[in-house]
Amino acid sequence: MAHIDDDLLKFEIPEVIHGIGALTKIGCCAKRLGGEKILLVTDPGIIRSGWIDEVIKHLEKENLKYVVYDNVVTNPRDFQVEQGAYLYNRENCDVIAAVGGGSPIDTAKGIGILASNHGNIHEYEGCNLVTQPVPPLVCAPTTAGTGADISQFAVVADTRKKRKMTILSRSIMPDISLIDPRLLQTKPEDLMAATGMDTLTHSIEAYVSSLSWPLTDPHAIHAIELVWRHLLNAVRNKNVDSLVGMSIACLEAGVAFSNAILGAVHALAHPIGGLYDLHHGLINSVLLPVVVGQNMEHAKDKFANIARVMGVETRGMTREEAAGHVRYQIENLIHKLGMPTRFSQLGLDTEDIPLLAKLAQQDLCMMTNPCCFSLDEIEAMYREVW
Amino acid sequence: MAHIDDDLLKFEIPEVIHGIGALTKIGCCAKRLGGEKILLVTDPGIIRSGWIDEVIKHLEKENLKYVVYDNVVTNPRDFQVEQGAYLYNRENCDVIAAVGGGSPIDTAKGIGILASNHGNIHEYEGCNLVTQPVPPLVCAPTTAGTGADISQFAVVADTRKKRKMTILSRSIMPDISLIDPRLLQTKPEDLMAATGMDTLTHSIEAYVSSLSWPLTDPHAIHAIELVWRHLLNAVRNKNVDSLVGMSIACLEAGVAFSNAILGAVHALAHPIGGLYDLHHGLINSVLLPVVVGQNMEHAKDKFANIARVMGVETRGMTREEAAGHVRYQIENLIHKLGMPTRFSQLGLDTEDIPLLAKLAQQDLCMMTNPCCFSLDEIEAMYREVW
Repeated sequence: MAHIDDDLLKFEIPEVIHGIGALTKIGCCAKRLGGEKILLVTDPGIIRSGWIDEVIKHLEKENLKYVVYDNVVTNPRDFQVEQGAYLYNRENCDVIAAVGGGSPIDTAKGIGILASNHGNIHEYEGCNLVTQPVPPLVCAPTTAGTGADISQFAVVADTRKKRKMTILSRSIMPDISLIDPRLLQTKPEDLMAATGMDTLTHSIEAYVSSLSWPLTDPHAIHAIELVWRHLLNAVRNKNVDSLVGMSIACLEAGVAFSNAILGAVHALAHPIGGLYDLHHGLINSVLLPVVVGQNMEHAKDKFANIARVMGVETRGMTREEAAGHVRYQIENLIHKLGMPTRFSQLGLDTEDIPLLAKLAQQDLCMMTNPCCFSLDEIEAMYREVW
Repeated sequence: MAHIDDDLLKFEIPEVIHGIGALTKIGCCAKRLGGEKILLVTDPGIIRSGWIDEVIKHLEKENLKYVVYDNVVTNPRDFQVEQGAYLYNRENCDVIAAVGGGSPIDTAKGIGILASNHGNIHEYEGCNLVTQPVPPLVCAPTTAGTGADISQFAVVADTRKKRKMTILSRSIMPDISLIDPRLLQTKPEDLMAATGMDTLTHSIEAYVSSLSWPLTDPHAIHAIELVWRHLLNAVRNKNVDSLVGMSIACLEAGVAFSNAILGAVHALAHPIGGLYDLHHGLINSVLLPVVVGQNMEHAKDKFANIARVMGVETRGMTREEAAGHVRYQIENLIHKLGMPTRFSQLGLDTEDIPLLAKLAQQDLCMMTNPCCFSLDEIEAMYREVW
């Protein structure tokens, strides 16, 4: 957690290697972390795209042995983490390498916890409950969205209770993140849009978080500016410039939110992700405008800055007037991306709203939102976008 | 080195804990790093100021044993590093804690190298020559200047050859930096001014460095803005706001220069620091205006941004016009601080200039300056401020 005492703020990120070709360093990085046999965590889509063939070449070049665990789906499950940890220990692995989006990376973090801390993944839900050092972890993200390769968060689905568990621990921060914009080339258009909206949500929530500070603010605001400049092109044309831009946006948003934490969009999104098997970025995108509308007056200066980097000509406006443009700008971007704007379009049931609101109010991410919401206010926000 | 391959950039900083009271965490941090017996590296001035008494209380509270090494002076010497390493091994220490300015921290880094890599400190001069893991290092900086608590640099004086050795290695980056603005309260006025000018130099050189990128740029430019807002007050009044501001400026400058590296000011300053026992920040301060004057046309956009955060009203100016203001702004600040502007005021001999120029041209920091200088051009810069 970023707060240690009332007056102390902390900042921690992995070693980052960024640029076209960063993936080629995966072998030497795994070796530098002490690896001889690597558990390679990924998913079937990444394998089909050919990136794992390349990764294996880089591992073999360093004479590293490896075993692949690819039973990973969107919103990774508790039992998948347990399976992976079993494999890690049975095969005597010593380093974990995760190649993929947030799901393989969160799975890898969960595997790391169980491999050395044992027990049940449900025991580690919450803040800093991981007590034993975890195996070294090197990540290569294939989406520009989650920031899981930078963060001390992992989200794993509790399949019995149908809810998402948030694990927040310094121990699960990856050791090295290899950010190679080439890996974004094989992403489908709709996934690029959803993960891009996830990045936008991370950067806005971190920027207005009650734990933001000068080590997180410049990255949060710059990430918003980069999303504004590059997301539409990254989705439509996939030109190299826009993929590099989005990879940096995702990195800077990750740097910001892992240390300043998040806010109400994530608090409202997590319970939906537990009940319905929807993409996390898609849920955030539906919720972002309404939450921004409610948060706006509690962080006027910051929302005015956001308006400016979103291209609004704010000269001559009051802070309030400038801040008031942010919601409209986001809605306009979502429209251009052709993404859904209401949960009814995604088949969600209004009957769940009271339960969702209760879970959202208790979510860890609500603690750093710029204002507090009553249960009624949370229900009203859900209903507005249902 | 920030460049791995031509297209790759890297970023790495220690875990940072910042705020009033951060020093109180030194015991639990040393313990978290596996410590049972701590080598506490500091200098006699810090001991007199009372901070070491407080540190010892925090170590004892965690039941840690400790031994103090305080034979450290400005521009730390090779033999002091060797003495400290001997003490570390003789006393079976397992963690190093450095409390002080750049000198105790650089000494602690050198001690760490020799404690586990053995041999002679001169063997490690240059890039990435430290091969064995070094002992864990926790730092608490008492000046807002060097950024040594954040960086992968150490500078140690070669007493036989009367020159400074720059050691640059991922291995010597501290594990944790505890940045407590309280520690700045006991700094004399002239040292606050010199270390503040060191911070300004770090941030300007990192900002215009050929290795700067979006993970370093926002910190470099924000550090310049903070120095502009807080340095004069920090020197004159030592009010809490300005000390907090300067501690963040120093942190952000350190984040930027450790990853984007430096430039010609440092390349020209290092040989002087080797020949004459002067404060590094003072030497940088004399050199900064003339180097900025020469670099200006090679990074016009960035110098125009610098002019803006220095408070120049740049609207309506061309980039060239705006950039042209930076040198004058710096000279004006140095004047207000009452610092020397010529090396002759510091008792330096013009006969050394040809030798200094030769050493400056070979300095590691010259590689990332925005332009290359001939030997004649370097001599001319020295003569302009002699």
